[in-house]
Parts: sequence; structure tokens; C-alpha cells
Amino acid sequence: MPYVNVKITRDGATEQQKADVIKGMTDVLVKVLGKNPASTFVVIEEVDMEAWGVGGEPVKAIRARAAKKG
Amino acid sequence: MPYVNVKITRDGATEQQKADVIKGMTDVLVKVLGKNPASTFVVIEEVDMEAWGVGGEPVKAIRARAAKKG
Amino acid sequence: MPYVNVKITRDGATEQQKADVIKGMTDVLVKVLGKNPASTFVVIEEVDMEAWGVGGEPVKAIRARAAKKG
Amino acid sequence: MPYVNVKITRDGATEQQKADVIKGMTDVLVKVLGKNPASTFVVIEEVDMEAWGVGGEPVKAIRARAAKKG
Amino acid sequence: MPYVNVKITRDGATEQQKADVIKGMTDVLVKVLGKNPASTFVVIEEVDMEAWGVGGEPVKAIRARAAKKG
Amino acid sequence: MPYVNVKITRDGATEQQKADVIKGMTDVLVKVLGKNPASTFVVIEEVDMEAWGVGGEPVKAIRARAAKKG
Repeated sequence: MPYVNVKITRDGATEQQKADVIKGMTDVLVKVLGKNPASTFVVIEEVDMEAWGVGGEPVKAIRARAAKKG
Repeated sequence: MPYVNVKITRDGATEQQKADVIKGMTDVLVKVLGKNPASTFVVIEEVDMEAWGVGGEPVKAIRARAAKKG
Repeated sequence: MPYVNVKITRDGATEQQKADVIKGMTDVLVKVLGKNPASTFVVIEEVDMEAWGVGGEPVKAIRARAAKKG
Repeated sequence: MPYVNVKITRDGATEQQKADVIKGMTDVLVKVLGKNPASTFVVIEEVDMEAWGVGGEPVKAIRARAAKKG
Repeated sequence: MPYVNVKITRDGATEQQKADVIKGMTDVLVKVLGKNPASTFVVIEEVDMEAWGVGGEPVKAIRARAAKKG
Repeated sequence: MPYVNVKITRDGATEQQKADVIKGMTDVLVKVLGKNPASTFVVIEEVDMEAWGVGGEPVKAIRARAAKKG
């Protein structure tokens, strides 16, 4: 009965990659904790880079600065 | 002061249905726990079916397979 | 497949009340959105009043002040 | 290593305002708890007004009624 | 920069099992999405069985009934 | 109507520090977004260090290793 919520920046994750994350995370819970996959939820939520901050700055600003430095 | 977060697959829930879920869930907390509706938040978040996994698979893939079986 | 997370202050909710909240919220989703109860999760998390803030103050402080006013 | 999740109604918050919220909240954790900003995440998620309920009603309905009263 | 929140019932997961879940989930994100492990958070939260509902019932009640049937 | 959820490791944060985080974060939302403090929730949740992972390891293990190196 686990509920796994995965928050990532909106960075172009493909449908296949999301399916692989869902599979991979479910397998971890089955293997480590013996959980039933049929009642294991994995939910992936993508967040715009302007709305995800680290070090007090939005990722969008951090990446723009890095890109300028080239 | 409860905060209720409702995560559902993006499945065409109408505005009225969301209003009914908000009303219904608030009423449960008022009736059962005597909470003040004025300070009870209910937030509904819809998740794309490719990003919601159960049984190690995205709901989108599960539904596509079921549709093929017809 | 809904996942409902209910955050409330740690205020002495009994086991029966939690069961009633679980039942009530599941029923709302079944009735309004036709969801399958067997794959509907409702999780209740209680938070200490010193750790829940409203109006910029912890609930614990607000209640202590109200109690003093008697 | 804090993770701060900020849920607000989708109300036209600008990119600059989101950057200011990220900065402000990170600074609070650095100042009060001595946290390392480099490993402090602040994530802002906006929710449609039809999907955010208070007092048993969606904010969208509350605002529409208030607008009518003018 | 992913943030993974894993909610499970309080079911006796050992410290080693939690470490293995953390390792396993981080590896999935590194392998599938190329994420940097150093800025990948995995947080495990355990919920009492009386506070986790499925099918409209607390897990605690479901397990008690199953135990009676023996 | 914002809801702010602050997850931190269980690291001895005092009641006063929690009150200061609540005040500080509410002030940020009032100042930057003009939010009403009376309907702004800030909830702080502490997580055991064995259950918070970064870099694929629990914080508890990382700190134990760092302590050994002295």
C-alpha cells in the first residue's frame, strides 16, 4: 500500500522514462519491503524550473547563468 | 484547520464534481471532527495517467491494454 | 486510484473518528467521481500544535492565549 | 536539507514573485535553523481556483459571488 | 534535484530496509533520468495503520478481521 | 490561502525556532504575494535522520561517518 510521490523539475522526461521510474521504484518496494505491487502507487509530478528553488534561487535562473558562462 | 490534498488521475473531472468533492470532504471533517469549515482547505490535484503508476505500470499503459482487449 | 492526504492538528482524534473520516472521504470519491474504493487511499497525518502555524503563529500559542483570556 | 512545498492558488504570481518567495523562504531557514541554502529546496505549486476549496466551496465560486456583489 | 516522498504503513521497516529503499530509489533516478544523487532527496514517512485507509476502512481493522479468520 | 509544508530532519528544532519559521514564512507570503496571514497555513514536519536520504544514503549514516572522521 505504499504511496510514492516523485517531484522533479520539468526537464523533458519522456513517457518511457516515467514508465521506467514507476517500474523501478515499485520494484524497490517489492524487493526491499515485500510490498504488493498491485497496491503500490507511484506518482510523478513535474515542476516548472521557475518554481523550483535551490540555494535561494530558481533553477531557471541558475541554469540561465550557467548557460551564459558557456 | 485541516488541509486535505486529493490526488486523482486526470480523468475528466468536471468543475461541478470538484466542487462536490470539496463540499463532501469538508462536511466529513465538520461532522466527524467538528472542524471549522471556514479554515478547512481541500485541494484537488490531477495527475496525467502517464505519470501515475500502479503495479509498476503507468495507468495510461494499463488502460491502453484493457482497451485493446475490448 | 485516488490518494487523499488529510493533515490535522494533533487534537485527540480517536481511532473511531479516524475510521469515520476514512469511510466518509472514500464515500465522497465513490459517489462523486465513481472511484473504486478498493484502490482509494486515505491517509491521516496529525501535526503537533507547535508545528502548525496560522496567521504567523503556532496554533499552540494561539490556544494558550485564548485559554488565558478564559 | 529542508524541503519546502508552497501551494498557492493560480493567481498570476509572476516569475519574479516566485523567485522572491524562494529567496525569502530559504533565508528564513538559514537564519532560524542555520540550514545550508545549497541543500534547501523550495517548490511552489499553483492550483486552479476551481480545485482549491475553503469553507466547503471552490475559491472560484467564492470569488465569482464576491464579484457579483461588487 | 528530485524529491521523493515515500509513505508506507508503520509495519516494522528496519533501519537497513529504509537505507536500501533510499539507495534503490536514488539509483532509479540516476539510471533513468541521469539525476545527480548528491541533490536527490528520498524521505520515508511511516503512518500508523489506524490512520491509513483503503476500501473505506483503516488497514488496522482490515488486518484484525483477517487475523480473526486465521 | 497558501499552504506551506516544511520538511526538515529531526535535528532538535526548538518550539521557538518553529514559531520563528512559521512567522518568517508567513511574512514572506504576505510581503511578496500580498497573502492574508489569517488564511495562511505553515506546517512543519520533522523526519528521522534514518528516514531522510541524500546521495543514496540516510543522513544518519552520513553523519555517523563524518563523526568518525572527527
